[in-house]
Amino acid sequence: MRVDGRALDELRKVEMERHYIKHAEGSVYISVGDTRVLCTATVEDRVPPFLRNSGKGWITAEYSMLPRATQTRTIREASKGKLGGRTMEIQRLIGRALRSVVDLNALGERTLWIDCDVIQADGGTRTASITGAFMAMVDALVPLVKNGTLPVLPIKDFLAATSVGIIDGQPCLDLCYEEDSSAIVDMNIVMTGEGKYVEVQGTGEEAPFSPEELNQLLALAKKGTDELIALQSELLGEDAQLIGAQKTSKS
Amino acid sequence: MRVDGRALDELRKVEMERHYIKHAEGSVYISVGDTRVLCTATVEDRVPPFLRNSGKGWITAEYSMLPRATQTRTIREASKGKLGGRTMEIQRLIGRALRSVVDLNALGERTLWIDCDVIQADGGTRTASITGAFMAMVDALVPLVKNGTLPVLPIKDFLAATSVGIIDGQPCLDLCYEEDSSAIVDMNIVMTGEGKYVEVQGTGEEAPFSPEELNQLLALAKKGTDELIALQSELLGEDAQLIGAQKTSKS
Amino acid sequence: MRVDGRALDELRKVEMERHYIKHAEGSVYISVGDTRVLCTATVEDRVPPFLRNSGKGWITAEYSMLPRATQTRTIREASKGKLGGRTMEIQRLIGRALRSVVDLNALGERTLWIDCDVIQADGGTRTASITGAFMAMVDALVPLVKNGTLPVLPIKDFLAATSVGIIDGQPCLDLCYEEDSSAIVDMNIVMTGEGKYVEVQGTGEEAPFSPEELNQLLALAKKGTDELIALQSELLGEDAQLIGAQKTSKS
Amino acid sequence: MRVDGRALDELRKVEMERHYIKHAEGSVYISVGDTRVLCTATVEDRVPPFLRNSGKGWITAEYSMLPRATQTRTIREASKGKLGGRTMEIQRLIGRALRSVVDLNALGERTLWIDCDVIQADGGTRTASITGAFMAMVDALVPLVKNGTLPVLPIKDFLAATSVGIIDGQPCLDLCYEEDSSAIVDMNIVMTGEGKYVEVQGTGEEAPFSPEELNQLLALAKKGTDELIALQSELLGEDAQLIGAQKTSKS
Amino acid sequence: MRVDGRALDELRKVEMERHYIKHAEGSVYISVGDTRVLCTATVEDRVPPFLRNSGKGWITAEYSMLPRATQTRTIREASKGKLGGRTMEIQRLIGRALRSVVDLNALGERTLWIDCDVIQADGGTRTASITGAFMAMVDALVPLVKNGTLPVLPIKDFLAATSVGIIDGQPCLDLCYEEDSSAIVDMNIVMTGEGKYVEVQGTGEEAPFSPEELNQLLALAKKGTDELIALQSELLGEDAQLIGAQKTSKS
Amino acid sequence: MRVDGRALDELRKVEMERHYIKHAEGSVYISVGDTRVLCTATVEDRVPPFLRNSGKGWITAEYSMLPRATQTRTIREASKGKLGGRTMEIQRLIGRALRSVVDLNALGERTLWIDCDVIQADGGTRTASITGAFMAMVDALVPLVKNGTLPVLPIKDFLAATSVGIIDGQPCLDLCYEEDSSAIVDMNIVMTGEGKYVEVQGTGEEAPFSPEELNQLLALAKKGTDELIALQSELLGEDAQLIGAQKTSKS
Repeated sequence: MRVDGRALDELRKVEMERHYIKHAEGSVYISVGDTRVLCTATVEDRVPPFLRNSGKGWITAEYSMLPRATQTRTIREASKGKLGGRTMEIQRLIGRALRSVVDLNALGERTLWIDCDVIQADGGTRTASITGAFMAMVDALVPLVKNGTLPVLPIKDFLAATSVGIIDGQPCLDLCYEEDSSAIVDMNIVMTGEGKYVEVQGTGEEAPFSPEELNQLLALAKKGTDELIALQSELLGEDAQLIGAQKTSKS
Repeated sequence: MRVDGRALDELRKVEMERHYIKHAEGSVYISVGDTRVLCTATVEDRVPPFLRNSGKGWITAEYSMLPRATQTRTIREASKGKLGGRTMEIQRLIGRALRSVVDLNALGERTLWIDCDVIQADGGTRTASITGAFMAMVDALVPLVKNGTLPVLPIKDFLAATSVGIIDGQPCLDLCYEEDSSAIVDMNIVMTGEGKYVEVQGTGEEAPFSPEELNQLLALAKKGTDELIALQSELLGEDAQLIGAQKTSKS
Repeated sequence: MRVDGRALDELRKVEMERHYIKHAEGSVYISVGDTRVLCTATVEDRVPPFLRNSGKGWITAEYSMLPRATQTRTIREASKGKLGGRTMEIQRLIGRALRSVVDLNALGERTLWIDCDVIQADGGTRTASITGAFMAMVDALVPLVKNGTLPVLPIKDFLAATSVGIIDGQPCLDLCYEEDSSAIVDMNIVMTGEGKYVEVQGTGEEAPFSPEELNQLLALAKKGTDELIALQSELLGEDAQLIGAQKTSKS
Repeated sequence: MRVDGRALDELRKVEMERHYIKHAEGSVYISVGDTRVLCTATVEDRVPPFLRNSGKGWITAEYSMLPRATQTRTIREASKGKLGGRTMEIQRLIGRALRSVVDLNALGERTLWIDCDVIQADGGTRTASITGAFMAMVDALVPLVKNGTLPVLPIKDFLAATSVGIIDGQPCLDLCYEEDSSAIVDMNIVMTGEGKYVEVQGTGEEAPFSPEELNQLLALAKKGTDELIALQSELLGEDAQLIGAQKTSKS
Repeated sequence: MRVDGRALDELRKVEMERHYIKHAEGSVYISVGDTRVLCTATVEDRVPPFLRNSGKGWITAEYSMLPRATQTRTIREASKGKLGGRTMEIQRLIGRALRSVVDLNALGERTLWIDCDVIQADGGTRTASITGAFMAMVDALVPLVKNGTLPVLPIKDFLAATSVGIIDGQPCLDLCYEEDSSAIVDMNIVMTGEGKYVEVQGTGEEAPFSPEELNQLLALAKKGTDELIALQSELLGEDAQLIGAQKTSKS
Repeated sequence: MRVDGRALDELRKVEMERHYIKHAEGSVYISVGDTRVLCTATVEDRVPPFLRNSGKGWITAEYSMLPRATQTRTIREASKGKLGGRTMEIQRLIGRALRSVVDLNALGERTLWIDCDVIQADGGTRTASITGAFMAMVDALVPLVKNGTLPVLPIKDFLAATSVGIIDGQPCLDLCYEEDSSAIVDMNIVMTGEGKYVEVQGTGEEAPFSPEELNQLLALAKKGTDELIALQSELLGEDAQLIGAQKTSKS
């Protein structure tokens, strides 16, 4: 029995509110249990220096937590004057994950800025960020297809992420903060609609884990991301059909 | 006629949702028209070095905007590695304003951390921050009175803030972003429940203003802060009666 | 009776030495009592990026205190690696104040750099900086009119600043450091030759102040800035007549 | 056929020179093909603040590349004034990996500083760092056992790391830089002497990968780390027998 | 014939105004031709961590130039957020030079902070700083002897500095900025009252120099520092006799 | 008798391994006793802004120590976020010294980046850096002559550096760390093949030194740099003859 009464392979309640911010091209407020993240997507008509005149686009992600997203107040990185290693690692992960399902050539010389700001943290903020940011990205790009700026949506597949871990010897899906703190293995998995891996990141700092345990964790993660992608698809309605459309052209 | 149809002396619609964040001692999500700020108050049982062993408490405020609070994306100060002048100025203002109505001796050796994070900006973010942060501060301190940690609430009076300005020669109350951009005088006023000034900050960068204009603006601000304080009082219900209780003891 | 024997509405002795630095286009060493500030003005033939090709000029101010300007040594901001909030606030104020009396279109694509370095501090350093910097700015721009680079001096009016405050219940003009430390209200006022307000900044951190008190303080400030402007005019001699000349053309 | 003529499951030539630096408690110069990393271990008799008086020790790792370790010169992070995200990510990985095989309670209140400085980079610098740093750590701690400071070596198991990836559709072991640049999947695996996982980090930024591909990569990594651990054991000679000795006491 | 009409072995006009700043324990405004530096000395009753409980004192120097000390405006190091290499080099030199004539044991656990702020630069700012800072240091320490805090002045000897260089093949004493820019060898010499070297720093970046040239330059520097020390002695009056008094006790 | 048995005028054993790094245009691993420095030279086909379109080249040097180059671990400057004064001073010295023997006009619009990374420190790291960096620079530039990019090697003369000091009243050549710590005078000398001075830097922080002592130290330094240059010449073989070849054209 888990701390919040869930089954071992059960996700927390997930909600995604689209169009949360009036200024942003895409904005999704995602809740996964008590974890809440505001994900926005901004379209900028230029690219970083290393891509100028390449015809290719880019996706950059930034991640941050409000000071009281956490149980005790966390000092702002803006006040410290530098980003911590954890923040850097997470924003690199989010950017890489989103880029893996976008055809950057089809995007053209545009940058998508993805901002994931954690309003309240209760475990799994990085995976909630990826799942929500994917939706914000779709919302930011679909209008470019509808108004003819882009011939086809440059998104090749769905994308969602979840965490899994071993608690008291039991593999569990979607850890809340209390579970995360006591897990001896902690793994984040990012998967596509086709069921392929984009990121597999497992850490056994407290105790190394066996190949068998790895397999159990991967199976749980598959179940979780399948459910998240089903929810994304339902919420997007007709727009969901634009995803993967360009796959037949080029990669 | 104003851009959003309001009368010259009319506030925008104001809402304050208390207890927005489960981790924070006090948290209020304030909306003033389309401006939305999440204000949290944290109680820490120690003070900055200059107050150690003084028996006095302190209030420190921090202010930040999410990147897409604004019409075009604003670069994070954490990424730039330093706070801008505007941010510093605003957070100094918020801290000073709140300290003016708190009896720091009665607070004892505690620090209140006030965090104002702008989720969406449409003019008047600093004044909305002060009005909301006052509420979060009350919510953070009342439990200390109820559980006997503090003998009396160390808050001497209500506190609210609003902006006023001159647009097309007309003094106006509570400017939205579009109005703010075209105002030739811009003034922020912080007032107490007793109708006294805590801060008067008026700037005529575009055009200096006359003593008569100053008086008209001050009158509008008085009307606005009176209405805001009435709303604060209503939302606090019975807790409102704890404010000003210690005034009879010492300052 | 005030600490240094002055009347309540009396300025300290004010002196301004022009052409103090041989390298700078304009340089004024201002003393207000024991407060001494070196103000220089530099003319640069280009503007910040946001004004390029706009035909408009800009004024940027920087403010700093030497380590022993103060009673105990202050750590250099260069050693700390960042500017403090107080410095940022003051340099933004100085820049805004000077821009309010300059026709930036008539200045053309030039930047005026104003540097105010406090050699010795005894209260009122920011207002002394504004009063002195105005003079340095005139000295830097008049030669451009005399040599034909500019058709008319782009300065619309005189500008001076002073502080006022309430000490022991008495409104006072031009506070020295000792008075400033014990004042319960502290206000800085920047006014033009025409008697209009450019900045009104009053803070009642120690105790909120009433509308009546505000009016008394504003009257004192008017007397003080009038006297400062009379002194500026006298020291500028014939050059004083160039000020306001372009007002008849455009703004 | 691979670019350097190796079989798909073949490691590059690995060498480890112990006691490379006379000042350091442990120092190993590891070469994996043309990748060369100097790994040092420093024993400090105190711990970071969060562990004081806990009786536990800590391991902190730092990673850096000399400017000409790379094909074109890389700007120093010391000159830029901040660590990049890649560096932070790698040094967090190295520290976590080493801590996973050390009994921090048995280490006592000591900090091990691990420094991995890349002298020449040709792919796989982070995995070479882990493999070499493990050896430096053993060399730094064994003397503490021999001189009686520690009753038993607090290292629970061997530790080595390697990279695997998919190149032209072929899973390969131990990628050199040229291979790494063209791999569509890139995975780093850290394993123990018992064959358990400490870290599994796979990224399919260029193309997501299937569960079957994941399994093939994991098998290759197992072969590689087994060979590396055999080499470590051989080079350590008698000291190798001290590893794992304390496992029977406590964890 | 030199640019300003001086003889090859002639110093510029040197003036030192003592007690320039009312707050500082010692303050000297030195002019060497058009070079003007404000030197202050602050006595602090504690030492840096590496000297705590050693009974020894320390001297730390800081050096800075006002933005318009130079012909074109120099960006403030506080705005850049870091000290440049030239500044660091100069402040290390000043501190080292002053420490060489102070008995740090006799000073006791005190820190002397020396601040040298260049008001106007015309060559030789670092040597003027040393010459002036020596005087400020004497003025800061003599009162401690007079009021009985120190039994004897812990200053072992006089100290002064000057620059020499080769211009158009001619060795010259005390270069002004115009000369400094065209010199092919640039040398700064710090000497004591006894005629010993404290610092010899010669650079032949434009052209290496021969042993003969070195000897000519050293002779000129000796003449210059002798004259500067004579002036220091004259200005200090009776206080000059306190210098060197403790030499007979210990070093 | 010296601590390591050398004669007073005897250098430590010096070795230089050329072509140590496969990626760098020039790379030399120099050992002077137990001091070991990796010096690399990088040729970049552009110059800093102040030299663009001047036809002239530039040489920039950077210097750093690995954390365990020293007896106790030194914190990385990259972790501290800024370069220390000692580092800045040394890298400015190295750059200046190398530029003194290079015809920057003949180099053309190229930048030479010199990186000196201290692997193990035992005194004299800055002088070993200069001696080794000169060799790396030759190795980086000779191929440009051989492939016809440059008509002639733009290096005017040999360059080497050594340290001298006074220990127990005895002038000594090439101090190791233990000697350096107890020396009362410390001097670094950079000389050319022709026997001219490029840098003379002597510091008597512990005790001022007399003109006679200066002369003895200079004589020792001459002997040391002569021997170092003889070794450089021998190791360069035929390439040594290219040095100084362009001297007959222009400077």
